Amino acid sequence: MGKGALALLVHGGTENWSPERWKARFDEVCPDRRVLQLPAADFDPAEIHYAAVWKPDPGELAGFPNLRVIFNLGAGVDALMADSSLPKVPLVRVAVSDLTNRMTEYVVLHVLMHHRQELYLRASQRERQWAPKFQWPANAVSVGIMGLGTLGANAADVLKRIGFRVAGWSRSRRQIDGVECFHGRPQLEAFLRRTDILVCLLPLTADTRHILNRDLFAKLNRNGPVGAPVVINAGRGGLQDEADILACLDDGTLGAASLDVFAREPLPPDSPFWTHPKVVLTPHNAADTDADEISKYVARQIERFEAGGALENVVDPARGY
Amino acid sequence: MGKGALALLVHGGTENWSPERWKARFDEVCPDRRVLQLPAADFDPAEIHYAAVWKPDPGELAGFPNLRVIFNLGAGVDALMADSSLPKVPLVRVAVSDLTNRMTEYVVLHVLMHHRQELYLRASQRERQWAPKFQWPANAVSVGIMGLGTLGANAADVLKRIGFRVAGWSRSRRQIDGVECFHGRPQLEAFLRRTDILVCLLPLTADTRHILNRDLFAKLNRNGPVGAPVVINAGRGGLQDEADILACLDDGTLGAASLDVFAREPLPPDSPFWTHPKVVLTPHNAADTDADEISKYVARQIERFEAGGALENVVDPARGY
Repeated sequence: MGKGALALLVHGGTENWSPERWKARFDEVCPDRRVLQLPAADFDPAEIHYAAVWKPDPGELAGFPNLRVIFNLGAGVDALMADSSLPKVPLVRVAVSDLTNRMTEYVVLHVLMHHRQELYLRASQRERQWAPKFQWPANAVSVGIMGLGTLGANAADVLKRIGFRVAGWSRSRRQIDGVECFHGRPQLEAFLRRTDILVCLLPLTADTRHILNRDLFAKLNRNGPVGAPVVINAGRGGLQDEADILACLDDGTLGAASLDVFAREPLPPDSPFWTHPKVVLTPHNAADTDADEISKYVARQIERFEAGGALENVVDPARGY
Repeated sequence: MGKGALALLVHGGTENWSPERWKARFDEVCPDRRVLQLPAADFDPAEIHYAAVWKPDPGELAGFPNLRVIFNLGAGVDALMADSSLPKVPLVRVAVSDLTNRMTEYVVLHVLMHHRQELYLRASQRERQWAPKFQWPANAVSVGIMGLGTLGANAADVLKRIGFRVAGWSRSRRQIDGVECFHGRPQLEAFLRRTDILVCLLPLTADTRHILNRDLFAKLNRNGPVGAPVVINAGRGGLQDEADILACLDDGTLGAASLDVFAREPLPPDSPFWTHPKVVLTPHNAADTDADEISKYVARQIERFEAGGALENVVDPARGY
């Protein structure tokens, strides 16, 4: 008997998640294993040992009696964790350097855009106004990163290198050289009080849903050079209270927002975010993943697992990430 | 007798170097010291203990018999070092890290904006289009930096850290870890051929005037993920042939341009750069020096010096920097 098959359950959304692209990549890196792009006609659910998934439907993974490992092809596993029928097998998050690097590109770009007054400068250009305003240096700006996993730690490192004062907040205690680390709810307020530009990279769990709300925004630093504080959310749409963001932008509690994620995606055409002058909107493309690198990562993990080794980046069901 | 006076020898150039601005700042941070903006009528050269200078004329500093320290308010001290009549007192560089860091902020921001398709994404937002396009990673993009002095080297280092393939070109041979270094006219073409995003930080000399012209743009790489190549000029306006830039943007030789400097500044209201959809324009504010921060720094150094402490960042005459 051959090796157990790998099932691909990749449900698009954007063109970047074309199932065909993933199938081709997995065929290449698992040459002696059957790779099934589901739905498929001719297969026995019992032959599936592994599933590599992106946004599977709830219940979809329950139909494989011999499933050993589930690989989520992105960083966030909130949708999977919400599936009560999810088989009790290890769930692995991708943590490839490609994903980390792309998220850092996004975070650094958006922090710099707000720091360097891009919204003002683009408006000046449109109005043909040569009107440089006072520009403070990066070392006068406190960036605060919520979520200090692999993504947050790497972004913090580059921001620090550029000169920003960087702090981070995470659920449990972390220590990062040169980054002021806060943890737990009791330290959240102190973290917010010193933060001019807030970057949210938290996983979405029951604890973090709508954590980005008026109550939190009101605690951010209003006395920094940036003026009204800025929020950048590249985590999950469910982390933000969208009505609060809009109201806080309008009443000056927030100065600006960069949003890559939304409660509903694609963002409906009538959303006020599209046209809000203080919103920099991106279509959930902060950290697209590279099928090349991720398929290799999954193949490597399967090989190691079958040789009796340990899986990496297994989700802790208790924490939810 | 009061404290020795501080002489300001600030010879403008751009509006950002207004002597009046510096005088006001120094008056504020040295409240109990006479601050003289030279040339001035009513003063005794012997009362001058300190000089804070920007582009002083050769010999200008030789006229103060009691001079104790010279503070240079800009990046390079090469002009000062070439002044054979320069008094043999400590020469302190104050602006280097601030200026360097600000230029790196600008360069990293604009490289990332073009890399991450910001012109496209802002247009999509205006049109309420949720339409992510394929996003290549930084390690697929070759950034080329013309000018590998302190500014270019620092920007190169951060871009490398973010993941870009970084090369540099300079007049004379340079070596920077992890950066492919080209030098001299004979190697210029090879440098351009591998460059997707070109960053120009060259000084303006007879050799470099209008170096950014059609001939040069035509040699840039057209086969990278960025597509048509991008030029970013944060050096001097005189480095660019402005008619060539516009024509090359229009015929597709260039895909986009970030311009901080122009032949005429302020840019005239009828310049086509203001409204060109492929131009990201900033009002010569890439690397403002912060009179606030620098004047405070100088005041702090003088205080420490008079209390018997050591000066920071004293130029080593043997090294020349």
